[in-house]
Amino acid sequence: MATLSELAPLLVETSRQVYARGWALGTSGNFSAVVRREPLVLAISRSGADKGLLTASDFIEVDGNGLPLEADARPSDETVVHLAVVQERGAGAVLHTHSVWNTLLSEAAGDAGGLAITGYEMLKGLSGVKTHEHSEWLPIVENTQDYRVMSREVKAALARNPGAHGLLLRGHGLYTWGRDLPEARRHVEILEFLFEVEGRLYAATGRLKAKAAGAVAGGNDGGR
Amino acid sequence: MATLSELAPLLVETSRQVYARGWALGTSGNFSAVVRREPLVLAISRSGADKGLLTASDFIEVDGNGLPLEADARPSDETVVHLAVVQERGAGAVLHTHSVWNTLLSEAAGDAGGLAITGYEMLKGLSGVKTHEHSEWLPIVENTQDYRVMSREVKAALARNPGAHGLLLRGHGLYTWGRDLPEARRHVEILEFLFEVEGRLYAATGRLKAKAAGAVAGGNDGGR
Amino acid sequence: MATLSELAPLLVETSRQVYARGWALGTSGNFSAVVRREPLVLAISRSGADKGLLTASDFIEVDGNGLPLEADARPSDETVVHLAVVQERGAGAVLHTHSVWNTLLSEAAGDAGGLAITGYEMLKGLSGVKTHEHSEWLPIVENTQDYRVMSREVKAALARNPGAHGLLLRGHGLYTWGRDLPEARRHVEILEFLFEVEGRLYAATGRLKAKAAGAVAGGNDGGR
Amino acid sequence: MATLSELAPLLVETSRQVYARGWALGTSGNFSAVVRREPLVLAISRSGADKGLLTASDFIEVDGNGLPLEADARPSDETVVHLAVVQERGAGAVLHTHSVWNTLLSEAAGDAGGLAITGYEMLKGLSGVKTHEHSEWLPIVENTQDYRVMSREVKAALARNPGAHGLLLRGHGLYTWGRDLPEARRHVEILEFLFEVEGRLYAATGRLKAKAAGAVAGGNDGGR
Repeated sequence: MATLSELAPLLVETSRQVYARGWALGTSGNFSAVVRREPLVLAISRSGADKGLLTASDFIEVDGNGLPLEADARPSDETVVHLAVVQERGAGAVLHTHSVWNTLLSEAAGDAGGLAITGYEMLKGLSGVKTHEHSEWLPIVENTQDYRVMSREVKAALARNPGAHGLLLRGHGLYTWGRDLPEARRHVEILEFLFEVEGRLYAATGRLKAKAAGAVAGGNDGGR
Repeated sequence: MATLSELAPLLVETSRQVYARGWALGTSGNFSAVVRREPLVLAISRSGADKGLLTASDFIEVDGNGLPLEADARPSDETVVHLAVVQERGAGAVLHTHSVWNTLLSEAAGDAGGLAITGYEMLKGLSGVKTHEHSEWLPIVENTQDYRVMSREVKAALARNPGAHGLLLRGHGLYTWGRDLPEARRHVEILEFLFEVEGRLYAATGRLKAKAAGAVAGGNDGGR
Repeated sequence: MATLSELAPLLVETSRQVYARGWALGTSGNFSAVVRREPLVLAISRSGADKGLLTASDFIEVDGNGLPLEADARPSDETVVHLAVVQERGAGAVLHTHSVWNTLLSEAAGDAGGLAITGYEMLKGLSGVKTHEHSEWLPIVENTQDYRVMSREVKAALARNPGAHGLLLRGHGLYTWGRDLPEARRHVEILEFLFEVEGRLYAATGRLKAKAAGAVAGGNDGGR
Repeated sequence: MATLSELAPLLVETSRQVYARGWALGTSGNFSAVVRREPLVLAISRSGADKGLLTASDFIEVDGNGLPLEADARPSDETVVHLAVVQERGAGAVLHTHSVWNTLLSEAAGDAGGLAITGYEMLKGLSGVKTHEHSEWLPIVENTQDYRVMSREVKAALARNPGAHGLLLRGHGLYTWGRDLPEARRHVEILEFLFEVEGRLYAATGRLKAKAAGAVAGGNDGGR
């Protein structure tokens, strides 16, 4: 079991790296890590915090319903989405980024309901992936300002795609996670790299790469 | 009430961040913050200062007419534009950047008189914006070397677009602002992010996204 | 003869530079340097190490068969490819990067079996190249998860192209090398620069530049 | 009169900035500043120095013929080109960079004999330019490994274009200069910014912007 005072500096370091690469400019993005499981306590960035100026005191604790342990603290509005990911995936850390390439691709592939990425060695940076022949299907969920709806939609998309390592909100950004913070951070780097490759190919050719339908057994939204 | 010696280090830090991201290379860009309101005193970068080499002593005080409080100081030539923004918007800080993407889009959308950005979660980083369905209309003003004309044109464009969070000078750059320096800096990051997304989409497709006319009630230059 | 404790800090410094430029995000890429020749001992990054978090203790020693000198150490899975480069080229250091541009070009030029780069002054940063009229042919080898096959294919491609300063694995990344670590690092910088130029030209025009066939005497895979 | 020991740290600092932005990777680029005029002594980076690893001792003094003051020192092969710029322009510092965008544009505009840039506020960062309506014509000289020929061609191009603030070598890079090192560095930043804007427009549209012929009185190579 970690404590908030142990996790907060690691969350700050992760935030700084993500901000420096331009993946969480302004107040965008939010970051969380599980403090304990039973009962669930999550450390998460507070609402409206500027990601380039985060300090350890900008992380606060919430319970499994998203309520802050300290009465006057105000967690991120998307806390319920982080909790959905923690509950659906058993994740130990959840990172939500707004990058130029993930925003652009979430629009370009939005009507298809998801983005497929296949054939790259870099995919092996995703937990459990052993070959570049892997096809990663990232479901895309429509954006909304109703966070209960968003949380429900995210949970449903994760349940339909048990193999997915990330999820895109359309015109909004990426959710990814890991069993701990280093793994979640690795997943951000891997997925953002792959988004840039696919985004530049899209820019060069004017279209997304054609992908074999149903490439991922049991986890593809393609049939929706 | 802040003092120059309190504000200058914050302005230097903001300048360094903006310079590091390539948004104020060479002597381009200028930055200001309100020292006091009655009578108005503005701290602003001096004319011709290299933005990668700024120190606190490169910020000087001017009055509401743009005259330096110290006789031999030479404020930025665009001081009158900063003052127009402070007066028209009640801003506490004004940041003017020259980025590749804002320059490129100011030309691409110049004939339309403005740039509309809509549908992105990132828009919520702009003060008062509560939904990604917001349509931000950034008026584009023709560039000129006559700063009195520029100041008048900027003031008129802001008056016609009371909801705008920024303004583009064609082939020149962005003006944005905030109630204080952190908010103004956040607005730079949000707008520059959105410019990069729209700019890359423009590069990928060869055209700006079609936007619904009159999407912003009461604040759209579309009818000019 | 260097020692591991002398080489490891230099390898860490190189890794940090390469990671900062986005050429080895997540756990991607691996780096090695020859500790001694007779019998061969190679210092190489351990398997699965996060390249943004590398320290000297993440480098371990292997023998000429890729077996770790310390029983419980686990070297990179691609150690056998590093050894193939060391043996075929007499290299003192081998660097393997995954950049956006090398990944993109390895796909775009994959069917041609290699990528030709010619006419740039920057080519003179490659060891032994004296003129921008040099044509560098980088063979492209199909990716595989069978490292013995990969090692054999890499060795064969190097033997067929004795003048090549690098080699691309398709959808995977770059291998380059040097007589020592500074030269290998210089080769990474030179080749990644050239990939970006060629990649951006490909994005701008939709095609790779046409190249004169057989431009490199004796070292061109063009006839395959 | 400055001394080598005063100038070298400033040259190192400039080199680091230029390297960090990716404008002088590997051993590419070289940098010089005038130590004294009568007789001419120039401090210049030594041949083959890695620009990411430069220290003050990598700068050496040469006379007006390019001969090193210390017998065993080896100045950059392009020293004669630096001297041509110093003599033709009276420059106090000369910076030569290899960026992706200057390389790409030197090819795209090479057949036209030069690159015209006009209509951007950023042009005012060039010494003596007072309006965005300025048209900057950068002559493009064919690359060669014969440095005496290169020096003569550069000198002739500068004489034909007395208003030019920079010069491109085709497939090679940029030469720019200033009355002192800060001005030369500012010119690099301004020109590289403008190259990126023009390069991205070229990538977006597939062509260079059409420019009015003969826009610069008395200094346009357009009639060649």
